[in-house]
Amino acid sequence: MTYTASAPKGFKTFVTNIGIKDETKDFVCIYSTVPCRAAGVFTQSSFSGPSVLVSRENIKNKQAQVIIAISKNANVANGTKGLHDAQEIINIVAKELSVASDDVLIASTGVIGRLYPMDKIRYGIKTFLRDGLKPANFEDAACGIMTTDTVAKYFSVKIGDTTLVGIAKGVGMMEPNMATLLTFFLTDADIEASMLDAIFRRVMDKTFNCLSIDTDTSTSDTAVILANGLAEKVDLKQFETALEEAATYLVREIAKDGEGATKLIEVTVSSARDNVQAKAIAKSIVNSPLVKTAINGADPNWGRVAMAIGKCNDTTDIKQDKTIIKFNAMEVYPSLLDDDALAKLGNTLHNDEIKIEVELGIGNGSATVWGCDLSDGYIRINADYTT
Amino acid sequence: MTYTASAPKGFKTFVTNIGIKDETKDFVCIYSTVPCRAAGVFTQSSFSGPSVLVSRENIKNKQAQVIIAISKNANVANGTKGLHDAQEIINIVAKELSVASDDVLIASTGVIGRLYPMDKIRYGIKTFLRDGLKPANFEDAACGIMTTDTVAKYFSVKIGDTTLVGIAKGVGMMEPNMATLLTFFLTDADIEASMLDAIFRRVMDKTFNCLSIDTDTSTSDTAVILANGLAEKVDLKQFETALEEAATYLVREIAKDGEGATKLIEVTVSSARDNVQAKAIAKSIVNSPLVKTAINGADPNWGRVAMAIGKCNDTTDIKQDKTIIKFNAMEVYPSLLDDDALAKLGNTLHNDEIKIEVELGIGNGSATVWGCDLSDGYIRINADYTT
Repeated sequence: MTYTASAPKGFKTFVTNIGIKDETKDFVCIYSTVPCRAAGVFTQSSFSGPSVLVSRENIKNKQAQVIIAISKNANVANGTKGLHDAQEIINIVAKELSVASDDVLIASTGVIGRLYPMDKIRYGIKTFLRDGLKPANFEDAACGIMTTDTVAKYFSVKIGDTTLVGIAKGVGMMEPNMATLLTFFLTDADIEASMLDAIFRRVMDKTFNCLSIDTDTSTSDTAVILANGLAEKVDLKQFETALEEAATYLVREIAKDGEGATKLIEVTVSSARDNVQAKAIAKSIVNSPLVKTAINGADPNWGRVAMAIGKCNDTTDIKQDKTIIKFNAMEVYPSLLDDDALAKLGNTLHNDEIKIEVELGIGNGSATVWGCDLSDGYIRINADYTT
Repeated sequence: MTYTASAPKGFKTFVTNIGIKDETKDFVCIYSTVPCRAAGVFTQSSFSGPSVLVSRENIKNKQAQVIIAISKNANVANGTKGLHDAQEIINIVAKELSVASDDVLIASTGVIGRLYPMDKIRYGIKTFLRDGLKPANFEDAACGIMTTDTVAKYFSVKIGDTTLVGIAKGVGMMEPNMATLLTFFLTDADIEASMLDAIFRRVMDKTFNCLSIDTDTSTSDTAVILANGLAEKVDLKQFETALEEAATYLVREIAKDGEGATKLIEVTVSSARDNVQAKAIAKSIVNSPLVKTAINGADPNWGRVAMAIGKCNDTTDIKQDKTIIKFNAMEVYPSLLDDDALAKLGNTLHNDEIKIEVELGIGNGSATVWGCDLSDGYIRINADYTT
């Protein structure tokens, strides 16, 4: 595999400000010149937004050609009007680009409970979209879907003659459940649809579903892959490896850029009863506000990791005397640290990346999850978001 | 029922600094002149501390006479040495006070993973305890169990001739699971032991188990009630009502004093499928960092409540079009607020107490839970706790 900034064949993009909230980019269109095989996973929230409801329906036939992403307003909890607006946007786009309505996917992110400014959206799409589509610029598209993100998240990789690109956004309201806030993968690889779907779900489960910024699962989570087949047939194993690499890269970028984050936290739990238990415990640690604040303050208060293991529901078979806890590769439990060792641990907690490892000594399950520290910055961003 | 500051008959207390960490009070002994009927509930953490393990064993016969509470060090995750230390403290106390070892309960709170300074503890108990016991002063005892608490939590009520007193501490690492960090109820009421146990569990489940400061369940949660029977037989229904009133008062005091808290949040979910679903959804709302920060910033971003309902696991039967959300008595969903109404809602969010009500329109289940906002203060307290 080689890394490249080039786009996969046959994709075009259009990124603009359509006037959703302010003057930053808020409208992204990703278009393939031919219909693509498509797979997608979406939030499991019972308050899923209209964009999720409509896209989930439109991707059922495993085919899509256009993705519309609107940022700064999630169009969620807006009743039947919200659903009608999402469908109308899809219909206008389909007409402008001469594609079937059910080949258009839509994804939204931003404030909940505010109606779309439909006059601006109708005008913008009808006036600018068709001629605005240019050879794909996915870095620009990654910028267009940002909300409180501070950097664009973008990854590109070549597998043989085939190119795979991934973009993502998401920094708060982030504990994806079967998807993440918004992430799109585009490839010109020629892959059969049901195989694409299986590979995509496996990779999302090991990457985006192992990410948590703040335990809050969005109503708008959407992860989609489009494969237009304009390049060659690809080795499936190589493709899955490349997709996992791209997704892991994006997940780490998202965790580093978590709202107010100053540090990436990676937690690995091993020798658990099974992978499910390992992931539950790893999530309990990476989500603990006390673990997160200790890391923020470079405080070697490792006991909070023991607390976070203990509070997990799925721990009846855990034995304190079989458990090993390591913090930045230093064993902290069961070894009891003296003051010098604690100070040394404290020093390592000034690093940009913090690693916590737990061995349970039960079985062969393991899982790695990613998150970030909890800082004053998170409070400031979220105490004042809509006002 | 009348409110009084007097202590129940037959109880003595001793509160001192024994040198655990600094010069603040850190050692509390509550002693009854006669053995008491006793009930207790403890953390379900798989990393329960030795104090919890030993007390859980000692209360099995539903009898106790002494409670020892040590603050500023939780004696947790200290291996077999920690367990041995807890047992030794119990044995010394039992000998000094001439009571049976298994009639002594111990509870600890503070940093995890540090050994007790046993020399100081042995010396302190042997030198001062016996003569230090004086007519009970529970406000002083409530001070002695504080860690990062800023106010002592104390409640006293008279039921007929009988007095019931409750004290509690706890401001962080707080999502009690069958108990809270530390809370003790003392009464001279004459109540049969198994009846006391049943009443205590029912009340704890509706009060302390409905409290969450930060989703982190402590390794040391302990809630105990001692009834020494020196006053009259009490009307059981009246007693249960008084106990619930005392526990609710303490829970609200704890929520208000949550680490960094500026506001109490009360969430009530009604017309749920059952009480279990109601509590799960209410907890999801009160624990959401995005709901908590919005309230901290008096930001009328009510859509985050819809998000918190949606992310809950137990919501497959929830219908968006049957759900009603009220914020400080203003209906925010499904009514969509205009800018004036949003500003009005924002103004009410400067109150000290914030009320969120959700009606699901499914069945007859309901639950009320308590928590607090998430502020810069929480970050500051917990980024620097041990150092």
